Amino acid sequence: MTLVPAYTAVSATEPLTPGVVSRRAVGPTDVLIEIAWAGVCHSDIHTVRGDWGEVPYPLTVGHEIVGIVTEIGAEVTRHQVGDRVGVGCMVGSCRECANCLAGQEQYCLRGFVDTYNGTEPDGSVTQGGYSTHIVVDEHFTLRVPESIPFEKAAPLLCAGITTYSPLRRWNAGPGRKVAVIGLGGLGHMAVQLAHALGAEVTVLSQSLRKKDDGLRLGADDYHATSDPATFTKLANTFDLIVNTVSAPLDVDAYLGLLTLHGTLVNVGAPPEPAPVTLFTLFENQRSFAGSKIGGIAETQEMLDFCAEHDIAPEVEIITADQINDAWERVLAADVRYRFVIDISTLRP
Amino acid sequence: MTLVPAYTAVSATEPLTPGVVSRRAVGPTDVLIEIAWAGVCHSDIHTVRGDWGEVPYPLTVGHEIVGIVTEIGAEVTRHQVGDRVGVGCMVGSCRECANCLAGQEQYCLRGFVDTYNGTEPDGSVTQGGYSTHIVVDEHFTLRVPESIPFEKAAPLLCAGITTYSPLRRWNAGPGRKVAVIGLGGLGHMAVQLAHALGAEVTVLSQSLRKKDDGLRLGADDYHATSDPATFTKLANTFDLIVNTVSAPLDVDAYLGLLTLHGTLVNVGAPPEPAPVTLFTLFENQRSFAGSKIGGIAETQEMLDFCAEHDIAPEVEIITADQINDAWERVLAADVRYRFVIDISTLRP
Repeated sequence: MTLVPAYTAVSATEPLTPGVVSRRAVGPTDVLIEIAWAGVCHSDIHTVRGDWGEVPYPLTVGHEIVGIVTEIGAEVTRHQVGDRVGVGCMVGSCRECANCLAGQEQYCLRGFVDTYNGTEPDGSVTQGGYSTHIVVDEHFTLRVPESIPFEKAAPLLCAGITTYSPLRRWNAGPGRKVAVIGLGGLGHMAVQLAHALGAEVTVLSQSLRKKDDGLRLGADDYHATSDPATFTKLANTFDLIVNTVSAPLDVDAYLGLLTLHGTLVNVGAPPEPAPVTLFTLFENQRSFAGSKIGGIAETQEMLDFCAEHDIAPEVEIITADQINDAWERVLAADVRYRFVIDISTLRP
Repeated sequence: MTLVPAYTAVSATEPLTPGVVSRRAVGPTDVLIEIAWAGVCHSDIHTVRGDWGEVPYPLTVGHEIVGIVTEIGAEVTRHQVGDRVGVGCMVGSCRECANCLAGQEQYCLRGFVDTYNGTEPDGSVTQGGYSTHIVVDEHFTLRVPESIPFEKAAPLLCAGITTYSPLRRWNAGPGRKVAVIGLGGLGHMAVQLAHALGAEVTVLSQSLRKKDDGLRLGADDYHATSDPATFTKLANTFDLIVNTVSAPLDVDAYLGLLTLHGTLVNVGAPPEPAPVTLFTLFENQRSFAGSKIGGIAETQEMLDFCAEHDIAPEVEIITADQINDAWERVLAADVRYRFVIDISTLRP
């Protein structure tokens, strides 16, 4: 067990402060990763502020992690010292249930082990990537292709896979019309991925403020949802709508935009139940769905797809001591489109 | 135009009474049908009682109709005088929109013409099958295979297709686990159809009162939803759940029964919005969907499938003057499983 530098939450309300986290000794199937970059996800803030339930402090968050392998366990075969690797939202799962065996570890029937605030088999609480090192089982460690700028690879591990998985599941591709609700960290990945998959992409955003960005990222069309005409003009249009917004929405209004057999899939979620009018679902045999990150194999596929298609998030680099300001800006939706912490600024 | 005998609603609250409805002259693409049997659907009662909005009285309902063709228009090619035919919930649609062209007339983007309380192109209100004759465009007239007992064919036109369409859409078949919520008119068809399609079928009913019926109809398993253990025992089990119940349900509890990529599809619906917890949809990448009857081609496919697999509803025959009592029994869920009116008792 080793203590390593970290930026840590000591309570739900105080700013993050420099601290340490403990990392386990490298086991037979583990890799030790020297973290280079860590993305800042809205989930980090929700978790620390207790929005999703009580958490044990001190807690170090961060689940968009890339770095270099500096040590491997005796049985490791997938990675070598010096490899560029990534870790996302999961660091473990049972590996035995039907979902794990189907490569869908994110739906592990016994619950996967979250990268932070998760529970290891020995009962200890996992600590995330706002730190200099992490020890992770090789199965949950991804290869990061050389062609992806390293600092931009970090957000792919959550924002990338969270949007890639539903796009693939619901067949975003040539001849399909896909809408993305919200152009934030997740939304700006969804637009790029859906476009690269060959779909016709429309952004549905509150205003037209980011329209130029949206079109530049690959959107074919861009509409303001503050304009009620949007909902009449686009009625019965989309095969797939990916909702990346965590705030409550007028679900029925968006369901009305789905064409025959269309699906509105949610990847962001308010804790309140969404009221769905069944008569709206009846029309066009519509579906209202949810999706949560992606499996390990699918995450690797997404990274390789991004490398092949030159896709990466747009990021704003910060030093570790800028994290508290960055969180305020995330809450104010004032980031284009993802903060990434330069973890070298955490080293002594 | 001809007046024909009917059993008619004169207000939302009074019993149905003998009356007449007017039928248009047989047009070039129309068939005149002498109605033999008419099924009693819960929708008939909802409509007459104003549950789904105001209706113009007098109104004759009934959209599970079978009879014999007694006259055809000059351009009719699909049917001949003497044919056994059926009419379901639709008697018209635009035939031009993308959905109509896809054979999904039930999702006609201009709205299909309901068999009763619908609006014809000339503005007149359509009148349903609790009557001795009806004139319908040949496209919306189905062939009823000889091997289906005629009185049992009637409920297939609504209860049959309403459950067949989602079972087909969501691939009920070998290796798939399907649950049916509610063993009523729709539910008892869903069980037979899903079983014949090769799926493993479970009934989820409030009590075990109808268990013997469910197993006899083809269910492999039967559980009482009044027992909370049902929801823990069957968690993460079903690929598809068909909800045939119109009363509000604890949606989240049922969503929890869906396995990886599972869908809960609603074919019955309360008017109130259903509250859906997104975190429940996230697990297993679940979907919450709706479905409404089926297209004309699919309805024909369903009738042929029922003939081939010897599937038919269980019916209780009534005379026309028993209709008011029958409605009370439908409301009390006291019918196994569908009332069918012997329309010969309406003739003078």
